[in-house]
Amino acid sequence: MTVADREPGAPLAMEVPAVDSPPGEQPVGWSHRHLLDVDVVTPDEIELVMRTTDAMREVLSRPISKVPALRGTNVTILFYEASTRTRVSFEVAAKNLSADVVNIAAATSSVSKGESLVDTVKTVEALGAQILVMRHSVSGAPYLAAEIFGGSVVNGGDGWHAHPTQALLDLYTMRAHLDGSVEGRKVVILGDILHSRVARSNIWSLTAAGADVWLCGPATLLRGFEAWGLRGAADGRRFHVTSSLEEAVRDADVVMALRIQKERMSSGLLPSLREYAARYGLTRDRLALARPDALVMHPGPMNEGVEIAPDVAAGSASVITEQVANGVAIRMAVLYLLAGTSSNA
Amino acid sequence: MTVADREPGAPLAMEVPAVDSPPGEQPVGWSHRHLLDVDVVTPDEIELVMRTTDAMREVLSRPISKVPALRGTNVTILFYEASTRTRVSFEVAAKNLSADVVNIAAATSSVSKGESLVDTVKTVEALGAQILVMRHSVSGAPYLAAEIFGGSVVNGGDGWHAHPTQALLDLYTMRAHLDGSVEGRKVVILGDILHSRVARSNIWSLTAAGADVWLCGPATLLRGFEAWGLRGAADGRRFHVTSSLEEAVRDADVVMALRIQKERMSSGLLPSLREYAARYGLTRDRLALARPDALVMHPGPMNEGVEIAPDVAAGSASVITEQVANGVAIRMAVLYLLAGTSSNA
Amino acid sequence: MTVADREPGAPLAMEVPAVDSPPGEQPVGWSHRHLLDVDVVTPDEIELVMRTTDAMREVLSRPISKVPALRGTNVTILFYEASTRTRVSFEVAAKNLSADVVNIAAATSSVSKGESLVDTVKTVEALGAQILVMRHSVSGAPYLAAEIFGGSVVNGGDGWHAHPTQALLDLYTMRAHLDGSVEGRKVVILGDILHSRVARSNIWSLTAAGADVWLCGPATLLRGFEAWGLRGAADGRRFHVTSSLEEAVRDADVVMALRIQKERMSSGLLPSLREYAARYGLTRDRLALARPDALVMHPGPMNEGVEIAPDVAAGSASVITEQVANGVAIRMAVLYLLAGTSSNA
Repeated sequence: MTVADREPGAPLAMEVPAVDSPPGEQPVGWSHRHLLDVDVVTPDEIELVMRTTDAMREVLSRPISKVPALRGTNVTILFYEASTRTRVSFEVAAKNLSADVVNIAAATSSVSKGESLVDTVKTVEALGAQILVMRHSVSGAPYLAAEIFGGSVVNGGDGWHAHPTQALLDLYTMRAHLDGSVEGRKVVILGDILHSRVARSNIWSLTAAGADVWLCGPATLLRGFEAWGLRGAADGRRFHVTSSLEEAVRDADVVMALRIQKERMSSGLLPSLREYAARYGLTRDRLALARPDALVMHPGPMNEGVEIAPDVAAGSASVITEQVANGVAIRMAVLYLLAGTSSNA
Repeated sequence: MTVADREPGAPLAMEVPAVDSPPGEQPVGWSHRHLLDVDVVTPDEIELVMRTTDAMREVLSRPISKVPALRGTNVTILFYEASTRTRVSFEVAAKNLSADVVNIAAATSSVSKGESLVDTVKTVEALGAQILVMRHSVSGAPYLAAEIFGGSVVNGGDGWHAHPTQALLDLYTMRAHLDGSVEGRKVVILGDILHSRVARSNIWSLTAAGADVWLCGPATLLRGFEAWGLRGAADGRRFHVTSSLEEAVRDADVVMALRIQKERMSSGLLPSLREYAARYGLTRDRLALARPDALVMHPGPMNEGVEIAPDVAAGSASVITEQVANGVAIRMAVLYLLAGTSSNA
Repeated sequence: MTVADREPGAPLAMEVPAVDSPPGEQPVGWSHRHLLDVDVVTPDEIELVMRTTDAMREVLSRPISKVPALRGTNVTILFYEASTRTRVSFEVAAKNLSADVVNIAAATSSVSKGESLVDTVKTVEALGAQILVMRHSVSGAPYLAAEIFGGSVVNGGDGWHAHPTQALLDLYTMRAHLDGSVEGRKVVILGDILHSRVARSNIWSLTAAGADVWLCGPATLLRGFEAWGLRGAADGRRFHVTSSLEEAVRDADVVMALRIQKERMSSGLLPSLREYAARYGLTRDRLALARPDALVMHPGPMNEGVEIAPDVAAGSASVITEQVANGVAIRMAVLYLLAGTSSNA
């Protein structure tokens, strides 16, 4: 797949950078210093991320998948929540760009000694961080960090709010299988929408790209989204909310199942995992309602047998592992574009 | 010590690689994609590992002990059990070969969120892992991983089952002190044989190399090994099982004490640490039964005063610290040989 | 600020190294193999550290702040206590010098399996460590390590005893704002002196440099220091102990607030955090007693609202963030000087 295959007619306002350039010499058309959510990224900028990701996938296909672009740049990964895939994805992405990576897991560090977030961010900057990748259980925490931090902040997931690199890798993965565009495609997000930052960021980027987005789950896990749906419709976005799995999945082009957090059971929002699986688990039979070539996606980690059946997760329609691989390329692209902005600033 | 000193007559079927070659240019005669245990490694291949380790020791003796062989290779260390020495040994080995190293400690990561091992391995591969070093509390887990993983899997210890790089470094250390061969040498493994992956892998490699292997410990910690001993004897391997420390240690060339896990006490298999130390602890008096130049070994970490007396651990017969140093060289050799196989595949 | 600005008349016995030299070629006048505390470092050597730190700050100001000085050197950071800022500071410092860094967090590693410190240090050396940065809750632990370890040991904080790199970075930060010298300056250390390794190391280096050091806090947290004060005075050092905040802060040039460990409450040494804050918290009103251009310092992490008011911590007198940034430069200088000593040995 090449860029030309995907977007035959669309001229791009910004030039895709030459990813093999040495540090500080990338011509970059990206204007944001931080990546906090996808809601402020324009369609042209999304296009730039996608094409830069194509270039990063080419780098990843090389025998030695390293470019010097971020040599000497300190990328600090400050995670206040446990994570493997996102943390490692950013770490590998940064190392592929020759950055120096510092990992700080807040749960096992003196960050737990009660220091304020503001002080921690100032400290991390004074220790040399130039790009700060941050995950926090409180929605909005990276926005606070961005106000203080002198370099670039990347939101690696904040509370229920946003997870922009996940939304970008999901969009990239869909486009790769849908002739380069999600416009007019029916995309279902299935499960615990209420507590999902993945859902929130995807709603923004997918509706902006013209997809017909359907949110589906138990009514208790959709609270507040119907109003958002109406507002979105007023803005010309296509956005539906339903508790009927059949209605949602019928003729869908993409079905994305979300992880059910077992903690939700105790809060009374869900009766039991078994009942959830019985009513909303993505099984082969239910997937048969979708289009024959529909894609199955999941942000991981999966509870197989709960929100998704093992044979569906491992089936031919599944692009779940591809999402992970594209995640590294997306994060290389994001770090690359942000670094270019910083060095031009 | 040179290769010639050790194996004067034996021609080697495979050529020892030139370890300073750049990535992808090593001529390698090694045929295994994975290293899961030593039981499938042929004597010629063992020889190749030993000689490659000689070459790696030479690298380690240089002022800057780094070669470019694995430049651009992602070595991911996925440990489901706490470990310092083995984890760091692989990490240092990989870095000495210029690999990029990713550490994942499963206890503190989202791996604990209930994701299946199969999904974790697929994810780690999609994140870029090319060589996966894995430790798991369940025997056989790395075999499952190897069925799924597209690169090479190295078993860093699985349950009670196997710890192949430990067996290789133990063999290397013994040979270095025993004129290049363990053939006909009396080697005692002393302690909790039942729960020891170190013992199991060493039994394979040592009996295959012609050593006279004695297992010694309380009868409760030898269960099942007598039958294995008889079967081994039928195959022409020399392999004895006894609860008599005196019988085992008398005239031994090597005495390897195993770590006593304190958890075993509660399970009723051992009366008390004090009683264990009194009956099976390796003291100076007991060591005096062995040959005057006998070697004392231990895979670490030691409970000094329990399975081994402090003066024995630190005495002139002890090669325990040398085992650790040889461990880095062995792991450099193993990673090097596996990477060569992958790049030729 | 240049070296000449700071010490116009003083000739330096040792030459400041050329920090861009390749490994092993630095001419170094530093004579210590370890850095365990500042009490054995001579004034000339302190001067050498300060000037080498100037050179490292120049390196840090470059677009790519990396020099090859420690290429191929293994720096192992073995921390038995949680830490973010000190651990990351050493890690970034070592990476800026192109060293290979190994992190071992003892709490989450098999170090907790009961292995003795002596065995751990021998093991870490056998695994390749050449410089060992160590933090331990037991005072004196790094001294024991230094007796065994074949390379260089840096004390990253031991119990209540010492924290030499903190004292050096504090001195460096003060000199930078006080015309190059603390001689005759009134420096107040405020808070829990009893349990503070930061205080102990600072008392040594500051009194040696001719500062007029005042220790201030509740009497229960000053126990033993009055006797030390008298002894110091006998040696010609200027060193006062008081529980009167007003007496201490009046006309001070520097006020350094120490972190209050919440654990101290339960031990009966402090009535409550609120009462401590009311009597000894560094507020704007109290700071007004000091000289108009007085510096506010804190080793971090801060309990804002307890030992220091938020507006003081973030105020124009505060050099707290600068301390953190200077910490990286100081640690680069220390690692650099120690590596030079080792390679000449």
